[in-house]
Order: sequence, then structure tokens, then C-alpha cells
Amino acid sequence: MARIVQKFGGTSVGDIDRIRNAAVKVKREVDAGHEVAVGVSAMAGQTNQLAAWSRQISPLVDAREYDVVVASGEQVTAGLMAMALQDLGVNARSWLAWQMPIKTARIDDINTEAIVSRFAEGQVAVVPGFQGLGPDNRLTTLGRGGSDTSAVALAAALNADRCDIYTDVDGVYTTDPRIVPKARKLEQVSFEEMLEMASQGAKVLQTRSVALAMRYGVRLQVLSTFADTPGTLVVDEEEIVEQQLVSGIAYSPDEAKITLVKVPDQPGVAALIFGSLADAAVNVDMIVQNVSKDGAATDMTFTVSRSEFDRSVDVLTGLKAQLGYTELRSDAKVAKVSVVGLGMRSQPGVAKTMFKTLAERGINIEVISTSEIKVSVLIDDEYTELAVRALHAAFGLDRDDED
Amino acid sequence: MARIVQKFGGTSVGDIDRIRNAAVKVKREVDAGHEVAVGVSAMAGQTNQLAAWSRQISPLVDAREYDVVVASGEQVTAGLMAMALQDLGVNARSWLAWQMPIKTARIDDINTEAIVSRFAEGQVAVVPGFQGLGPDNRLTTLGRGGSDTSAVALAAALNADRCDIYTDVDGVYTTDPRIVPKARKLEQVSFEEMLEMASQGAKVLQTRSVALAMRYGVRLQVLSTFADTPGTLVVDEEEIVEQQLVSGIAYSPDEAKITLVKVPDQPGVAALIFGSLADAAVNVDMIVQNVSKDGAATDMTFTVSRSEFDRSVDVLTGLKAQLGYTELRSDAKVAKVSVVGLGMRSQPGVAKTMFKTLAERGINIEVISTSEIKVSVLIDDEYTELAVRALHAAFGLDRDDED
Repeated sequence: MARIVQKFGGTSVGDIDRIRNAAVKVKREVDAGHEVAVGVSAMAGQTNQLAAWSRQISPLVDAREYDVVVASGEQVTAGLMAMALQDLGVNARSWLAWQMPIKTARIDDINTEAIVSRFAEGQVAVVPGFQGLGPDNRLTTLGRGGSDTSAVALAAALNADRCDIYTDVDGVYTTDPRIVPKARKLEQVSFEEMLEMASQGAKVLQTRSVALAMRYGVRLQVLSTFADTPGTLVVDEEEIVEQQLVSGIAYSPDEAKITLVKVPDQPGVAALIFGSLADAAVNVDMIVQNVSKDGAATDMTFTVSRSEFDRSVDVLTGLKAQLGYTELRSDAKVAKVSVVGLGMRSQPGVAKTMFKTLAERGINIEVISTSEIKVSVLIDDEYTELAVRALHAAFGLDRDDED
Repeated sequence: MARIVQKFGGTSVGDIDRIRNAAVKVKREVDAGHEVAVGVSAMAGQTNQLAAWSRQISPLVDAREYDVVVASGEQVTAGLMAMALQDLGVNARSWLAWQMPIKTARIDDINTEAIVSRFAEGQVAVVPGFQGLGPDNRLTTLGRGGSDTSAVALAAALNADRCDIYTDVDGVYTTDPRIVPKARKLEQVSFEEMLEMASQGAKVLQTRSVALAMRYGVRLQVLSTFADTPGTLVVDEEEIVEQQLVSGIAYSPDEAKITLVKVPDQPGVAALIFGSLADAAVNVDMIVQNVSKDGAATDMTFTVSRSEFDRSVDVLTGLKAQLGYTELRSDAKVAKVSVVGLGMRSQPGVAKTMFKTLAERGINIEVISTSEIKVSVLIDDEYTELAVRALHAAFGLDRDDED
């Protein structure tokens, strides 16, 4: 007997038939003798509707009242899922955030006593994702996509053997199958790799939920609600027997590059630039400071997401006199492509293969950044697909069966 | 300074513009220096959608999970209303049932301490109608239309000076204005009259909410969200200076009449008939037992609502042998018309005028029933409108200004 958290995302519970279908998957685990808690998102489209109503009332809504409105979406699914399970003969009840309670001040402060005592009676617990109770007894939410994170937190609190994230894709792939038809589904991937893949633009799992799973050692499984195939296990790297040199190619098409020309090479300049951008809620990613030729001025290049580009330019233009740069050059048509793999820690040569592969296709590399298990490059966004396909083949990730 | 509960029904908060419009009415009371609690229904159509989803899952839904689903509709409006008030510069927050809490085991067991302490800070409380907390910490609801009732309960708990029920009509009329264009809006009406009017088919206010208001002496006002005219005050009869002989004409078109011919005139027969119908959840209204001519058998006539007619006939047919009647006669095309007025307690002659008026139009009276402040007759439903118009004129209720 295992204890399992099953989480169903918005498309997996998008209408009544899909809720029934998800309930069948819960019943299967119950019939296998497992203790099951079910995390549910709002039905697809509901959260958008509720958010739209709120914005129509006022562009500057009170965050606490906004949470009251949007949290209702998950409440609806929780009730419907409990009914669907009962209709299949499964003992089930919904647990709203205030009934357990789930405190969001600390996401890991979840009182599971009542649920666990009902497990002994064979009862399934259905928990609306995304919502919790703030310190003042107000409803709060974990932000868009917070359902993954609350399912992982629930699994951690329950000390569950596995947290199954049901979604509309059947696992984590070596890269986006829409770009590379020969992309392979990974049987397993480490938390660290998944974090790099997620933050590099592979949007299967919320970055925050992966970080939480890693911290608490919650074994994640990503699998499809609409197919009966095994998914991808996201686990501690120690569980991975054969570490791949490269596990996947991630890409992020919505980048923008900014270069400040001839910034005085003085202490405090970088702090002023990046401090001001952080104050404007701009998330700076890659940073390159060119070597100063004459020791007096340097070119500073960095990337931001395209949605934060205009705001960044505004901030930096306002600081021009203070920073003393001569020119602001920008390019909003760049993309980031990354090669991710645990194996590159012990085996060198990944960067070399990557640069060579891109050079052979005539793709110019504008910025490079690396971490222990990742090499990222910034390129002209017109070459994104070409680069991803070439790297996928070069690192031996293409599926054989279609050769 | 007064303490006021303002309640807005589903059509009054049916979309974002209407919620804004309702918020303006709240602001007006706040600006006048009053302490205000706002009760809100779900946006028109939302409860139907939520109920439909529940029925699609299973015709036999768990009532507690059903409540979890449908109660979300009022939660959404409460959050949106609080935002709309804040957008107008009014200090406001929503209070969900579990936050106060409102216990539904006893509707009058509402903890208003937190709300009252916020009144002192000038804060408006927005309370989702219809929902409460059951004894086991589960969400419960008060049944369809329960928002009126919870607003009255809130007003009673707050010891409010007035409970304003905003709806899509601008008050209580002497009769249905769709049938009698000369119907007048009543400035005031007593709880007792309103109860008779409500249960006789004038569907402005939920019967249960009127009964609760009478029990706790909550002054009700029924008024339109869409017009700026005074509504109708529903108050204790002692507050009504000039009691009308007849305040209104009510009608109920969906009645059905059943006659059991030659029921043995024995003790226990009536108990068997009406006990069996009650067991089948049939609500019997008028009952007439004709005088037994030979002392051995009697004809028993009574009415049920048309929606319960088929079920009633099934029950009684199954009891034919046991009851020993010779024939079941039925008529599903009858209507009940009632004349209601406090004044008829002290002044006789209302029944006489009523019967004479109907006789002059050739309308046959099939069954009569009376209470202290009401005379009801059952007639062929083809004559419903004719009867209502004739009685409205005969009792001097027609508006003058159109003569």
C-alpha cells in the first residue's frame, strides 16, 4: 500500500466528462489499495473568467478580495470531483483550505491529521489546489499555476510515496515535440535537470513546484490524463542509474538583449543598473561585461524577458546621465537555447559540441551563460528552431524508430 | 446613524455593471453615516450553471458536496462587490460563512462580533448570502432563494434598523401588474399580509425570509436596484396606521384538484390519505370534506400544486383498496385566487363581496378556504385573470391616475 497524491490540471478537469475520466484514474489507485489525496485545479477557462470579472471591476483590485473570487474555481472542481468519485462508489469528500487548514504563510504548514484519519476509513480526500489560509484567516492563493505547488506541498505534508501530476502532455520530453518530431519522452529526469528545463522554457511543470519537490524529496510523476501510458518520473539524482550527458534541449523564444555602451568602469555602476531594474520588477537573466579596453569604460550586455523590455529601457534611459553610458543598444528579437544534463558535470566537451554545431549552421552566438548542468546561448530568434533541431540531433537525442 | 443590511438578488448583481450600480447604492448609505452590511446572491445564471454541472455528474449528488459547489457563486459576488466598493473609495471586505462564522444549524446563530468591531472603523461588511457552516465544519446552504433568508438572519443578528431587499421589481403590489396594469405599489404591508401574499403566489420575497423577519421584528424594505423610487416597507402590523380592508389580490395558477368519491366515513381515513401524501413529499393545500349524506361515506376534495399532481395520483391509486373510495376525480386546470387584508379581521363582508363579484362574471367557485386575514377560492384556471381584475376593482385597489 502506498500513499499517493494525484493532481489534475485545468484541462484535465475542463468539463464534466473529463472530471469523470479523472475520477476513474483515482478509483484505479483506490482499488489497488492505496491511500489517495486528489488535488484539483479550476476547470479550464474558469480562472480566466473570474480574473476578467475582477479586472473589469477595477484594474487595481484588492489582492485579498481577488483571491476570494478566483479561489472559488478550485472549490467548484473539488465538489464536483468528490461527487464523481462517490458516483463511482468511492468514499470521498472535499476539504477546503480552511477546513484542514492549509496555512499559506508557510506552504509546508498543512494540517493533514483529519485527512490521514479518514484514510484509515478508506476515504479519498479531494483538495482544491491553489488556495490556502492567510495569517488573518483570509483566503489566499498561490498565484497562477499554483495548483502544482500546492499538490507537491500536500504530498510533502502527507509524506506521500508519489505525487502524480496529470496534465495534457504525457511526460517530459528531450525537447518540444512541436519543433522536433523525433523528441523522446524521458522515463526519468532529476529535479536539478527539471528545474533547468522548467526555468529555460519547458513549461510542463511549474518551477516552484519542482523546487519544493526537490527540497522535500517528493517523487513527482508527470503523466497524461488522456492516455494510459507511463509518464516521466522526476526524482532525486541518486535514483537515476545512468546519468545522461545531455537530457534535453530547452529554449525560450521571448528574450530581449540590451547593451549599454561605454559604461564607466567604476565600482557601484553594476549595482545601480541591476538594482534599479530589480526595483522595477524586471528579472535580468544573462549578464556579460565586456573587457574594458582602455580601463575607463566597458560595454554591459544583459537579457530580460520581452514582456519586461519596454519597462527596462524606460528605467535605463532615465538613468542615462547618472550612469554616463554613451548609447543604449537593444535587440528584442533574440532567443535563448540551452543544453541541460547531469552528466556534463563529470564529462567535459558539451559546450564545445554545442558551439561547433551552431557554427556549422551559421548561427551566431551573442551571449553565453553556463551553470554546472547547463549551457545557454543567446541567438537571433529566427534560428531558434534550426538550433534546437541541430542540437537535439548532435547530442544523440533523436528517437531511433523514425530513422 | 442607523445600522442597515442591504441585500442584492441575482439579477441585481447579474453582471459587472450591475455590481457597480449596487455598490453605488451601498456607498450612498455609507455616505449618510450608516453602518452597512451587504448580503449578495450569486450572479444571475451562475447557480443554475453550478447546479447543472452537479446534476451532470450524478442525479443523486451528495448534498454536502453540492453545497460546496453552488456556494461558490455567492463567494464570487462577495469578492467582486468588496472590490467595487473599494473602487468607489469605500472601506469594505468580504466575510465568508466560515470567517464569521455563520452556523446554519441555527440560522440565528451568527457571530457578528468581528463585523461590528469593523463598523466602528467605518468598514462595510459584504456577506455571501445562502451559505453557512454545518455542525461538522462543512459548508452548507439554505436552499434556492436562501439569500433573502440569510440577509434577514444577518439583520436580526446585527439588530439592524432595516433590511433592504434590492430586487428587479420596485416593491410589493396590490396584485401582479402584468395582469392588472392598474395595480398599485403598497407603501407598507404587514408581515402577516406579506406571508399570505408570498405563500399565495406573489413571489417578491421568500416566505421563509418573511417569517423570520416577523419572528425577530426585522423591518424589511423591498425596492428596485434599477430605479431610485421608494419601495414597500414590510413591518409589524402595529406600525401600520390605517389598516386596509383588503391589501392585495394574490393568485396561484399552478394548482390541481383531486376528489376521492365515497371514502368511508371512518376515523383514521384522513390520516392515511394525508399522511401518505406527506410521506411522498406532497404539500396539500386546501381540504374540503363534504358532509356525509348517509353517514357511511363522504367525498374528500383537496388541492396540490400541479408539479406534485402525478405523484399524488400515483400514491392515492396505490391506496385505493385500503381507502375503499369508489372513484378518483381530478382536475389539473384550476387556479387559486386569494383576497388578503388585515382589516377583514374587524370588518365582515369581504367573503360576500368576493363571491358576489365572481358570480357576476359567471365564475364558479369550486373550493373555499379562509384564514383570519385571507379568503381563497379555487376556480377554473381559464378565469384566473378575469377574477383577479374583477376583485382588484371590486375592493377599490385600482390606481386612480389612469381612470
